[in-house]
Formats: sequence, structure tokens, C-alpha cells
Amino acid sequence: MTRWNPTDYQPDDFANRRHIGPSPAEMAEMLRVVGAESLDALIDQTVPQAIRQDQPLGWPALSEAELLARMQDVAKKNTVMTSLIGQGYHGTFTPPAIQRNILENPAWYTAYTPYQPEIAQGRLEALLNFQTMVADLTGLPIANASLLDEATAAAEAMAMARRQAKSKADAFFVAHDLHPQTIAVIETRAAPLGIRIIKGSIDDLNAAEVFGAIFQYPGTYGHIRDLTPEIEALHDAKALAIVATDLLALCLLKEPGAMGADIAVGSAQRFGVPMGYGGPHAAFMSCRDELKRAMPGRIVGVSVDTKGNQAYRLSLQTREQHIRREKATSNVCTAQALLAVMASFYAVFHGPEGLRAIAQRVHLGAVTIAEALRRAGADVAPQAFFDTITVKVGVGQAGILAAAEQRGINLRRVGRDRVGISVDETTDAGVIRRLLDAFGIEDAPAPAQGPAISDDLLRGSDYLTHPVFHMNRAESEMMRYMRRLSDRDLALDRAMIPLGSCTMKLNAAAEMMPITWPEFGALHPFAPRHQAAGYAEAIADLDAKLCEITGYDAFSMQPNSGAQGEYAGLLTIQAYHRARGDDQRDICLIPMSAHGTNPASAQMCGMKVVVVKSAPNGDIDLEDFADKAAKAGNRLAAVMITYPSTHGVFEDTVRDVCRITHDHGGQVYIDGANLNALVGLVKPGEIGGDVSHLNLHKTFAIPHGGGGPGMGPIGVKAHLAPHLPGDPRDDDSGAVSAAPYGSASILLISWAYCLMMGGAGLTQATRVAILNANYIASRLAGAYPILFMGNRGRVAHECILDTRPFADHGVTVDDIAKRLIDNGFHAPTMSWPVAGTLMVEPTESETKAEIDRFVAAMLAIRDEITEVAEGRIAAEESPLRRAPHTVEDLVADWDRPYSREQGCFPAGAFRVDKYWPPVGRVDNVFGDRNLICTCPPLDSYAEAAE
Amino acid sequence: MTRWNPTDYQPDDFANRRHIGPSPAEMAEMLRVVGAESLDALIDQTVPQAIRQDQPLGWPALSEAELLARMQDVAKKNTVMTSLIGQGYHGTFTPPAIQRNILENPAWYTAYTPYQPEIAQGRLEALLNFQTMVADLTGLPIANASLLDEATAAAEAMAMARRQAKSKADAFFVAHDLHPQTIAVIETRAAPLGIRIIKGSIDDLNAAEVFGAIFQYPGTYGHIRDLTPEIEALHDAKALAIVATDLLALCLLKEPGAMGADIAVGSAQRFGVPMGYGGPHAAFMSCRDELKRAMPGRIVGVSVDTKGNQAYRLSLQTREQHIRREKATSNVCTAQALLAVMASFYAVFHGPEGLRAIAQRVHLGAVTIAEALRRAGADVAPQAFFDTITVKVGVGQAGILAAAEQRGINLRRVGRDRVGISVDETTDAGVIRRLLDAFGIEDAPAPAQGPAISDDLLRGSDYLTHPVFHMNRAESEMMRYMRRLSDRDLALDRAMIPLGSCTMKLNAAAEMMPITWPEFGALHPFAPRHQAAGYAEAIADLDAKLCEITGYDAFSMQPNSGAQGEYAGLLTIQAYHRARGDDQRDICLIPMSAHGTNPASAQMCGMKVVVVKSAPNGDIDLEDFADKAAKAGNRLAAVMITYPSTHGVFEDTVRDVCRITHDHGGQVYIDGANLNALVGLVKPGEIGGDVSHLNLHKTFAIPHGGGGPGMGPIGVKAHLAPHLPGDPRDDDSGAVSAAPYGSASILLISWAYCLMMGGAGLTQATRVAILNANYIASRLAGAYPILFMGNRGRVAHECILDTRPFADHGVTVDDIAKRLIDNGFHAPTMSWPVAGTLMVEPTESETKAEIDRFVAAMLAIRDEITEVAEGRIAAEESPLRRAPHTVEDLVADWDRPYSREQGCFPAGAFRVDKYWPPVGRVDNVFGDRNLICTCPPLDSYAEAAE
Repeated sequence: MTRWNPTDYQPDDFANRRHIGPSPAEMAEMLRVVGAESLDALIDQTVPQAIRQDQPLGWPALSEAELLARMQDVAKKNTVMTSLIGQGYHGTFTPPAIQRNILENPAWYTAYTPYQPEIAQGRLEALLNFQTMVADLTGLPIANASLLDEATAAAEAMAMARRQAKSKADAFFVAHDLHPQTIAVIETRAAPLGIRIIKGSIDDLNAAEVFGAIFQYPGTYGHIRDLTPEIEALHDAKALAIVATDLLALCLLKEPGAMGADIAVGSAQRFGVPMGYGGPHAAFMSCRDELKRAMPGRIVGVSVDTKGNQAYRLSLQTREQHIRREKATSNVCTAQALLAVMASFYAVFHGPEGLRAIAQRVHLGAVTIAEALRRAGADVAPQAFFDTITVKVGVGQAGILAAAEQRGINLRRVGRDRVGISVDETTDAGVIRRLLDAFGIEDAPAPAQGPAISDDLLRGSDYLTHPVFHMNRAESEMMRYMRRLSDRDLALDRAMIPLGSCTMKLNAAAEMMPITWPEFGALHPFAPRHQAAGYAEAIADLDAKLCEITGYDAFSMQPNSGAQGEYAGLLTIQAYHRARGDDQRDICLIPMSAHGTNPASAQMCGMKVVVVKSAPNGDIDLEDFADKAAKAGNRLAAVMITYPSTHGVFEDTVRDVCRITHDHGGQVYIDGANLNALVGLVKPGEIGGDVSHLNLHKTFAIPHGGGGPGMGPIGVKAHLAPHLPGDPRDDDSGAVSAAPYGSASILLISWAYCLMMGGAGLTQATRVAILNANYIASRLAGAYPILFMGNRGRVAHECILDTRPFADHGVTVDDIAKRLIDNGFHAPTMSWPVAGTLMVEPTESETKAEIDRFVAAMLAIRDEITEVAEGRIAAEESPLRRAPHTVEDLVADWDRPYSREQGCFPAGAFRVDKYWPPVGRVDNVFGDRNLICTCPPLDSYAEAAE
Repeated sequence: MTRWNPTDYQPDDFANRRHIGPSPAEMAEMLRVVGAESLDALIDQTVPQAIRQDQPLGWPALSEAELLARMQDVAKKNTVMTSLIGQGYHGTFTPPAIQRNILENPAWYTAYTPYQPEIAQGRLEALLNFQTMVADLTGLPIANASLLDEATAAAEAMAMARRQAKSKADAFFVAHDLHPQTIAVIETRAAPLGIRIIKGSIDDLNAAEVFGAIFQYPGTYGHIRDLTPEIEALHDAKALAIVATDLLALCLLKEPGAMGADIAVGSAQRFGVPMGYGGPHAAFMSCRDELKRAMPGRIVGVSVDTKGNQAYRLSLQTREQHIRREKATSNVCTAQALLAVMASFYAVFHGPEGLRAIAQRVHLGAVTIAEALRRAGADVAPQAFFDTITVKVGVGQAGILAAAEQRGINLRRVGRDRVGISVDETTDAGVIRRLLDAFGIEDAPAPAQGPAISDDLLRGSDYLTHPVFHMNRAESEMMRYMRRLSDRDLALDRAMIPLGSCTMKLNAAAEMMPITWPEFGALHPFAPRHQAAGYAEAIADLDAKLCEITGYDAFSMQPNSGAQGEYAGLLTIQAYHRARGDDQRDICLIPMSAHGTNPASAQMCGMKVVVVKSAPNGDIDLEDFADKAAKAGNRLAAVMITYPSTHGVFEDTVRDVCRITHDHGGQVYIDGANLNALVGLVKPGEIGGDVSHLNLHKTFAIPHGGGGPGMGPIGVKAHLAPHLPGDPRDDDSGAVSAAPYGSASILLISWAYCLMMGGAGLTQATRVAILNANYIASRLAGAYPILFMGNRGRVAHECILDTRPFADHGVTVDDIAKRLIDNGFHAPTMSWPVAGTLMVEPTESETKAEIDRFVAAMLAIRDEITEVAEGRIAAEESPLRRAPHTVEDLVADWDRPYSREQGCFPAGAFRVDKYWPPVGRVDNVFGDRNLICTCPPLDSYAEAAE
């Protein structure tokens, strides 16, 4: 009967209904299974009392409707202007079909990094298209699947050059007309590695004194020149040449590869990715074939599956820092997959003739402006350019900037007496008229007479010749291509992705909506601050909430990934020591169990990594730790720990570790990878941490995007705050990213998440994440040994299943992972932190029903293992080894010792809605041995259509 | 080499690159195949010179970017206010996950009506959920899958009552507190049927003099009363009782079924569907079991497939007007599927406890306001209400309305001295404060003391007890449920849908974007006009463009479907004749080949249908026509023709038909179903048409939404303009829809389409649609006889494939249709206009590549037919009869005379990206014999998860 209790039910109670998976009834049942009296009791058994925070998180929750209203208010505080600032960020038009079907489509944005190639063929194809596009346009054969931003890519290229150049010089030449933010990030990277930076005009380059050099082409002020002589000189000196470049310019200009460049880097932002007040966008890197094994980041390659069918995969995985650890020269991990996919589709949409026409129009627009200004007597530079010119305005600089702004246009302030103008694909006749008007030119400009590019700099080679760039570009066809690719992949919109340490939680639709509003998308990162008041408000409030959550005093939003956060955090510690005269502090203690990025980041900061042992239960060996800290003494710079540990356990000794570190004058870096087990319960800044990075794309609901974007802001205690990264536009600022707030636009997602959850909701999320993990541990403990339970027999927010015992029977962790695909699941994290194990993290977003489906799958797999173990079926003949099963298997003759039914519909698999992997198990060795990282000669698209 | 021709390529040339499928190279090849020298030549051979328009369509095309900028400008001219107007339209909050994953997802919005159930199980399930929700909430066992709007539903219910009631009375009682627009539409419908409308207070009802009565519950001014006594009185008089009601109110109030009502109607708009300045939204109808076979519209039912697995389908198809024709009592055809799906998901999201809580909050909000106003001395009515009250304000009416508007709130003007206030789920404390402030009440309102509903009117029964409404409502789970359902369906986002006469063209992403902007979505249809200046501008410009395209002088945007357009057009003709004293004109000539809605519409207007013969070539038999027109003489009211004809041919005699009609004083109705073959080439208003409806959801790019929304505005010559439907708020206005501009928000899609295509683009679309159809005819002519080529051997924009010869061998048109599913295609239109044929319309949006894939499939099917015809395989054993093939077939033992490979991968089928139907061929007879039109007792959702 009707009860009058409308407040019992909050239709928009996002925290407890929409975001947190298990219903109250499910939770009660789960608590029964794990043997806990209540959720409070479970948490008390799991999280040591000694480290719990006193006060609950304070702010209230907003409903979805309130959130969107708040976001609209904030959006209105930003002013959308036409940006002609350039400097690496340009207006672009995102084709609506790409916006709707990629950026706003959970099938694309909720996907994980394509480590399991069989369930990632769609995005792997799109990323291969990206690589092909970059390789073609830059004229270098090997390209990776994106990097964080152009500045980081340039810094990575420098590090790569240092490793690969035969020159023994210790200096690196930086052309003075690189984008200022690129110079800043290079400087930051160079210092701890002992690289001397020589900045100067290209004409001043002395190849003999450097191991490498980087040029911007076109330069940040618009200059273009043929770099062949400089590159030859570098090669003569056994140094390497890096060209930071622009993909749209390369549709017209001679490509870096044709000039002999070894490495090209740049940003693909203007290929259809909104500026977003700094990001996210995909940076790129390409190189000569000889350098491919030194290339940082992920490379998609072509291999074959068990049937010999073409299949894509990530290649050369062994280069990853989790293998090389303290020997790594890069910690790059997260890429910008979603944005690289968008850029690749932009190229597919326009094709080479379209891109060329856009480039020509951009160029002729710039020529039109230059000629009109010159006709009016202005001093315009340079003579030859692509899209960017500067105009001498003398003491009128502020006046011109203001006059342009009054007309809705932002120009670039260049030095004290010039302004910069960069034309982009959105610069139409109206913009040009308004711009000239700001200069007092009233006459309609004459049409451009011709290019301002000399013939020898015009591109002579074809590009984007692969059939995928010559598809019929009808929108129907494009839409279907995007749909087909996304259907090949398995993402969160179809099933849980139980990845340990990767926290694949819900990315709610309401959180995603604002990022495609023009008020957030269309802002240039270097727009005048008063135009970005909305962003300022959002970032300040997110900052305050993150401080409250973590117990830190200040945040830097610059780092675009977790690994970049680690690097930035360690640099901050280093700067702090230096500021106190503690220059000798160079030792970083890292437990054996740490994520591979930890030692790699320390190495990048020039620190000496000392590894601390683990106790048999997986905890830090406190004795060994105390020993090594004492031995380091006043050389102790930092300790990097993860809490709860990478083994998924709340170690009781964390306060001791911090105390010992501080006693020796060291700083404590607490890796935020596992923050999803802490929020609302424990503040890292209160238990001894001095700095942490947060993976906003894990704990704070930014979608993984199929391998990026990520965000890894760092929080620090007050004493470190003065040493945080500075403004990337300033020299020696310690900047780690090109943009002041990194990928600013996606900060809105995390902010929305915090606002909708409220403090209490965030805390409940943590508690339920722990419940979900313990429930899985309880359900699976009889079938799989659970490694590293805490002292009280509980795991934190993830648990490790030991599969090593099955190796004796020939069943590998890979077999289990691939068999899960038959059940419609992404595999848990494999062989990390312990080889031969699976680490499972369900997150709070998964319901009991979905977890039960996963448990059913794992138990059925265990039964199949028993069949093998008891000799009833050979491992090689078993459905485990033959997994994943494809439709091709079903259609073909069947000569297996188990039925089609058992092969294809194991427990947990949907029947009607089953996900079918498009390829069988992919051959990794073949792929690495035969690296092909651009679209293969045959037309995959047409082939698929056969 | 770089060529300087940026204008050769227009990256945003929507008309020629994004919307029109074939590339120039493909077109050249297609022209070669059809044997035409050029596209001009083909058009000259196809479209009679005598009827071609002189002047090309005039306006220029906008790029996607320009379009969205224009739309933003227009959007800003609308003022979004809080609406408390009520009157059938309420503020609601669309859950973002529904907006993103349904309304903005092409997998849902590009789907066709689920006539082919095997490829429509997802939306059929969602629609079954809708029916279950309606049946439960209204307390009546049978519900349909939506109607156009509440007013139309009420008029349909009246017609149904007249047919079903045993009473022989000729009058119908309409309670005076029905929504005014409902009364207007009922009046319009009643007049031509000779139904006398008695309007009055419920207390004045004299059951003996009526065959039926309709009550509004709650009433338009808020009153609620138990209608049981009145319904009993009606039943005693063998009359039927109809209750127009509100689903949210029924979450608290005693349901119509419990009062004995025979039929319930209403709108599901406030279940998460934006008001959209009038629509589209889903209306509903439910009824007692005994009436089910009289129910208009589509009903989803449960049946089984060949394996006996549960499968959904449209039930009772034989009721459709294309079968009953001039005996039909309704012409309802298009539903509001997409909006019904949204509403059903809204209910799934909230569940019964959530809906009850929302209803309670809405009610208590209204109570709070009523009490505060009474405390301030106001005369508030009624005493008992759900969400709506009126307040006596005397001569202060205008002042209060203005004061509220100043505070951002729209109230309803009621009579001369009252204002109406309707609370909805978005009415929060802030709105209540602002509202009371408008009344000069400054004190904070006291919390409501309790409900203003007497106990006997409180609902006593449960609802939404089916498990689907008790899913865990975590967003992850909801998102996955939506994804699973959409994956079961085959829509335009995966393959062409070659439906004759249904014009399934691209629905471009850019066209879809504005409709979910709040400036367009949040407007109440009866908001003050000055708040809707943006809509006014858009509608006026669309009107002007449609006039230019058709040669008509005025348009009415009211009709929400093609059939409603026919009805409105014939009413307009009728009103014209009456105004001239030609009351006797009651004969409507309709060719045999006409679409079934034509005679049904004429019948609804009380016209006498006289059928005109077809010549053997499918054309109108001109002699027979002239005869019958002469015989009708001064009784000739109208002629309804389709041009080009439903046989897909441009008849040379169209001008003669029009001339003869006019000679006899009749009016020519040209059905706009085939306008996609005319735009830019021929203006129906110039060749003799007096009125036409346009299917904006066919020719003008509104997506089909899986069976609606549609829009069928009518264009008329100047002499008919005064007789177009009037404002639905006025009595005797001749209104046909509840809202002045019908489903106003989707008019924006057609406007966007016109703006982006430009006049030249629209014309080219027509030409290419004709090319594509002729290409298919040429490719398939050797395999299938093509019926009804024009005099010059060309078809228009569609072609009819004769499959009757195969019937001798036991191969049916159904076999071909189902076999096409194995190829990944929706079947063409089956057995219409000629039984045993397939009508194919590719539209201009399909590329040659996609058409070739379809042709390959059809040729492969033809080969399989030959196998049967030549006795190599029995029809019953053939892949044709066993189609469609499912994964279940593959997994099961295979004892068929053809291979799995042949069964599942016929020519044209994608291999990796194959679409697998979730069920085998559905049993139609079983479903009609055992009508189940609510969710079956077992939990389909949980079953699917097994």
C-alpha cells in the first residue's frame, strides 16, 4: 500500500543507486558469504584502525540534474572566443559523426588498454590507422600509438636520442623557436639526466657538441625552412635530429623524413580533437626503422591468430617499464588512445585529398591576412610560412590584443612588440574580416595570390595511400565502420573488467556530458585567464576536494598520467631537497613489489634506486627497509610505496615506514594507484605521505578510453607546495606537461564524480569496493589459493588468485585469461605483481549479479583445469588452450574432445547476447618478430566486408 | 604533387560527400551499368519532361559547422523557463544514461518498425516493457506499443468505443475538464463520423444517450474523483467508459481498471521524455481483454521461434489498415517507438518504488503550494488533487502570470480569473519559493502535512511487479541492458534497409545534435509565444523551404505521421467544399494500388471510397478513372494519388488525372510517400496537386526510431490554406494533434537536413536516389523480373522484384526475406503493393559498395532458389526455409543438406562483423493465437543472462 516516504527513495541518488553496484539486499547476502556482521565490521577487519581518518568527508551530493545545472552555470563563466593563438593548439571541427559515435560512445570510451588483443581488434585497427597516418605524413616508417602531449613527446625523443646516438656529447640542442612549453618540459627532463641544453637559433647549431637536436617545423612563430643541411651535419657528428612538426602542415610541406630526420614528434590535436583548455589530445612520435626498439609508448603491430588470420596486437611489449624497471629510460605507460582514435577517424573522414584541401585553405587564409596587413604597411614575418605569422605592433601590442578580443578573437602575445596569428580550419572569411578590423583595416582582403611556400619546401610525396583512407566517405559508411570496429571490442558497456590496480569503475553518462559542451571544449589553454573563470572555479573546487580526500595541502593538475605524476612528484621532492641544500640526497627506496613505473620514474629523476625486500606475506620487509634507509642516511631522497600495497593488503606498518623515512630526512611518496581503497577512510597525507599522484582515470571515474586519456595530478604537503611544477610557458618552470592544467577538460569528469557522490558516497564506494573484493575472494578461495590476505584474513579492494599450481599440468595463466573471453570477460591483471597469478579488482560499480557471473566463469574454468589435472583431457586439447573460441571455429569442422556447446557457452557466458571475439588466440612471438606497425598492404576493410 | 585547388574539396560538403552515398567514381560505374550516358540523361529518361520544375531550388548549403552555429543562434532565441503549465506536458528529468544510450544512439534511433521480428528483438522487448508498464499502471490487461499523442489516443478510443459498444446511441460524452486540446481533436474526429459530442460536467452525464464517455483523471484543473458510479451507469447502458489519465498520478491513485474503465489513454511524456515544444512523446492506450482485437496501433506480443524459444513480434498485424483499407476505422500506422522505449527505460530505471516516491514528492510539492496559498488567503481548488491546482486571482490574472514569468516560471491561464499550477518531478524547493514569491508570499512554506487524496482514491494494488522493473538499477547494469537490447537489432548503423516506400536514408549526427539541447527540449508547447522565438524562426524557414520544394503555398506542421497528414489533408479539402456550400461532395477516388492508409483516412473523414482500376502496367487506368470521376460528378470530393506511383513509376498521365479531377470540382491529394523521387525535379503543387502530406521521417531525414516518431505536415495551395487545422487549444479548431506544431522538436532535424543539403544538394539526392534504384534494377533484372518499369524502361526511386514465379517451387517471399537476414540485411518491403513481390528502395545515402553487397546477397539467394527449382534440394530443407540461421543452429548438431558455412556465410554477409539474429524464424500464427502483450512471467532478463 502507499507509504508516504518519498525521501526514502532518492531517484537521483547517484552515489548509492547508480554508481555503487550491489543493492542493499545484495550487500546483505555478500556480507553473509564473507562472514562479516556488517559492512562496518568488514571495514574494521580490513583497514587498520590506527590509520583511519577522524572526520568523514564533508560535502553533500548533487543529483544528476543538479550536477548538470551546476555544470551549465560554470560553463557560462567561460568565454568562448575564436583562438588564433596557435602555439600547438588550434581550432578544429570535430565531425559530428565522430563526436557522437566515438567520443560520446561508451563502447569506445569505456574500453581498457588493448593488452588482450583478441577483444580489442577494433581499437587496435583504429590505432593502426593512426600510426599509418603519422608515419605517412611525417615520412618516417615507424610510429607509435600516441603519447601524452607534444612537449612530453619531445622530451621522450630527447631521451631516446641520448640512448641511441653514437655521439658521446652531453648536450642537446633546442631551437629557440620551439613552442615555449616544449622547451620548458625538455628542460625539466634534461636536468636530472645531466643533459646540457643549448638553446639557440638554428643557424647557431654546432653539431659536434651535441648528441641530438630538436627543431620546430613550422616554427612556433611560423618559419619554415629545409632542415636537410642541419640534419646532415648532425648525422656527420653521429648525433640525431628530431623534428617537432604539425600534421596539417605536412599535408603541404616537405616531410621530415625527406629531410633525413631521425625522429618526428607533434600533436594530432587539430585533427578533430577539441582544444579542451589544454587537452586531452594525442601526441605522436615516429622514427626511422633502426630506432624502433627504442621507441617509447605503445606500438600496435600486425600478427596472426591460431588460424593464421591477420590480427592486431600491441607489439614489443617487453620494452615496457614494468619489465625494465630501474633500467628503463622512460616511464611512459598511458597513451591518448581515445584521442588518437578520433584523429585517425578525422583522417579517414577527410582522406588525403580532403586534408590537403584543408591545409591549402588554412594556408591561403594565412596568406590573405599577411598580404592585407602588409598592404596596410605592417611588418609581417616570416616571408615563407604555413599557417602562422607575427606582426610587429610595437607599443600597440596591448591595444591590438584588446581590440581583437573585443571582436571575439584571441591573438598570441609575442615578445614585447609583436602579436602572433595562427589560422586554422575554422578560420572563415568572417573571422578574417573581424581580425583585420582589429588592425583598423576596413577593406575586404584580396584573395591570396598563391602560396607563401617556396617550391622546394612543397611536399613531393604521396601520403595516406592505404585504402582505408580512400573509403567512400559517406556518413552511412563511416558510421558503420565505427560501429563495426567497436563491436569487435569488449568494454565496460558489456561486462565488468576486473583488472587489478586499474579500477575500471563506471564512467557515468552525466559525468561525460559536459566535456563536449563548447564552453569547455573550445578553450585554448593559453587563452586569457579571465576567459576561463569557469575552469578556474571547477579546478579550484576539485583541488579543494582532493585535498580533503587525501590530507594534502596543494595539488598540481599538470601530470597527464599516473607515471607522469610519479615523475612530477619525485621532481618536487628533489627540488625541495635542493632548496634546502640537500643536493646529495639521491637514493630512492622502492619495495620489490612496486609497479614498474616507480623505479622507472626514479631513474628519470636521476635517483639511485635501492630495492627493498618483501616479507613472505608480501608486505614490506620492515627490517630490510630500516637497514637500507639507515645505510642511505643523508643520501635518502625518497621512499616510494603503494598503499594499500600492490598485493592488495593494508599493511599495518605503513606509519613505521613513513616515520623511518622522515627520521632520515627522506620524503615519502605514496603511489595513488590503490586510492580506491582509501577514499573517505584513510588520508595518505595523514599517515605520513608527503606526496602522492592520483589516477583520476582509475579512482575518479575518467574513462580509460581504450588506453588513455589519463590524468595523474599530484598532491603534496605544504612544505613541498612551492616546488610543484610551474607554468609551462616559463623557462625553468619545472613543467612536466605542455598545458598548465594538463588535460583540463577531463578534470570535469572527476569533479562531476565528486559532486554527485558527495563525501559520504565516495566513502561508501570505498567500502563497497572492499566488500566486492572480499566477496570474490570468499567465493573463489576454494578453487584458487588467494595470495596475501591481510592479518585479519581480509583483502583490500582487490585480490590475487594463484594459478601457479596449475602450471604443472600445463595450464597457464594465459589459458585462463583467454578462456574468460569465451565467458564474455576481460581477463584480470595477469602475472602482476606476482608471475603466474591473476589480480582481480571488481570496484564498487559492479553488482553482485555481475560478480556472480564472473565467479561462475572462474569456477567453471577451475573444473576444466581439474579435467586436465586428472588426465581426462590433455592441456593442448582442452578448451582452455583452444580459447578463445570464435564463430570460425563453430563453422569449421569440429574435431575436438569437447563439444561446441562446451567450447562456446561455458558458465557465465551470455547465450543470446554472447560476445564473439573476431580472432582466435593471437600469436605474440610472430608479431614481435615481424613488426608491421602501419596498415598492412591488403585492404583490411574490404577483406572484412568479404 | 600539391595542386592549389582547395575549393575543389569541401570538407563539409555534406550534400555531396556525407549524405549522398555513391562517390563520383562509383556513379560513373553505375551509369555504365544502367546504360545511361550521364545522370542528366538518366533523369531525363525517368522523369517526364512535362512535369519538371523550371527553376532549381534556391538556397545555399551550410556546412556541418555552419549548421550547428546557426542552430545555436536559433536556440538562444528560445527562453527556457520552468513550466508549471501542466495540461498534459510536464517537466521531467531524462536520465543521462537514457539520453546517451537511447536517444542519441543510432543503434536505437535508426531502426525501422519491427515488422521483421528476428532482427528487432531488442526494441520489441523494450516495447513489451512499455506495454507492461501501461497495463500495470492503468490496471487494464492489454496495452499497445504507443500512439501519437494523448489527444489522438482519445479520439481513437472514441472510434473504438463506437465500434465496440452495444449501445446504439450516436452521442459521445466528453467531460468538460478534459485537456482542451484533447477535446478539440475529439471534435475534429467526431464530426465526419456523425458522432454527436456532448460536453459537460461529469455530474451531467446521461449514460443512456451515449455509446461512450471520456473522463480526464486527474482532470485538467486537478480534480480527482472515483469514477466507478459513472462507469457502472455507462455499462448499464451498454456504453463504454474511457479514462484519459496520467501514469505518474496512477503511481498513487486508484487505477482506471479498478474503477471498471474499458479503455485508458494518456501520455507517457513525463516518464523522461523532454517536452520538446510539443513532442514527440509516446501516448498510450490500454483496454479490457475483450476489446483487444479492436485496439488501434501496434501491439507487441510473445511468440516462439522454430526452436520453441521465446521470441517477440508485432501481434494481430491483420488489423492494420493496409489490410482493412476502406473498412478500417483507424489509419494509425506510425507509433512513437523511440519515445515509448525511453519511457519504458525510465520505469526500469526507477522501478515501482522509485516511481511511487517521485509521485509522492510531486504530490507533496503541490500540497505544500496549496497550503501556503490558502494560508495567505487564496481560493485554491480543488480540495483533492494529485499535482495540479488552480488559484483564483480575479483581475490580477495577467499580473500574476507576469510576476511568475519574471521569476522564470510559466503558469497556466485558466478562464479569466484563475491560474493553474502543475507540479512535476523537477519542481524543487527553489521553484516553490520563487512561485510563492510571485504571489507575494515571502515566508518559507511549511512542509506538507499529508496527502490531499482521500483514502478511497489511494491506490490499493501493486504495479510493475515483473522482474525487469526490479533489476539492480546500477548504471553499469542499465547501460549493459540497453547495449544488449540494441545489439539484438539490425538498424541503419550496420546495414542498408532497402524498404520500398519507407525511404530509410541517413539520419546524420549533425542533424540529431540540436534536439537534445535544453533550449529546444525544455519548452512547453503552450509556453508564451515570445519565449519560443527560436522555434518560430526555424518553423517559418522550414515552412518556406517546403513550400519552395513542393509548390504549395502554406503548410500545417500538426500531423504527427503520414497517415495523420492524409486525414488532415482530406479534412482540409472537406472544409473547403463545405465553405463553398458543396456539402454533397463525399466521394474519394483512390487507385487500387494505393497505400492502405489512403482509403482508411478517407473513411475516417466520412468519405465514400471509390476504387479506380490499375492498367496491366500498374498505372492508373485513365479510362476507368475518367468514368468514375464523371459518375461522381458534383459529389467528387477528392482524388488520392501517389506520385511517382506506389509501383515506383513516373506515370505520364498525372497531369490528366489532376485536370479531370479539377474539371469535376474535385481536389487532388498527392500522397507524399514518394517525394524522395521528386524533390528539386517536380513540384506536386505545380502538376495539379492541391494538398500533400510529406513524410519528414522518410524524405527529410527524421530517423524512424524503430517505429516512430514520424511527422506528416501537409502543404496546400492557397485556396485551401484557410481550412488548415487550427490551434488545438481552441474548440472546433479542426485540430488533429494536441500540439500546434505536432512533434515540433524533430522539425529541427528536417530543417537541418534542408539547410545542410541546400537546394542543389536536395536535387542531387533525388537524382542519385533514382540512379541507385535503377542500378539495382539493372543488376538484378537477370535474376528477378522487375515489375512496372516506366515507358522508357526506367524505375523511379524504387523497384519491385517479382518473386511469385518461385512460389511454384515452394520458395516464398518470406523465405527470401529471412534469408537476407543471414546476409545481414533487413528485408525489402514484402508483398506490397503486389503480393509475392519485394519492393526495394535504396535511397541516395547508400554507396555502391553497400548496394553491391545487397546485390550479391540477392544473386546468391537466386542461386539457392535455382537449386530448389532444379530439384537438387527440397524447399523445406533448403537454407532459404531454414533461414535465418542462428548461433544456436551452429552449436547444435547439424543434419542439414548444406554446410554450416553455406548456411551462415552466404554472399554479402560480413565475416568478422556478421550480425547474428538472436532467434530463429518466429512463429506468427502461434503468437496471434496466444496473445501475450505484457512481459511473460519468466524473467527474460535473467534468462538472457544464463
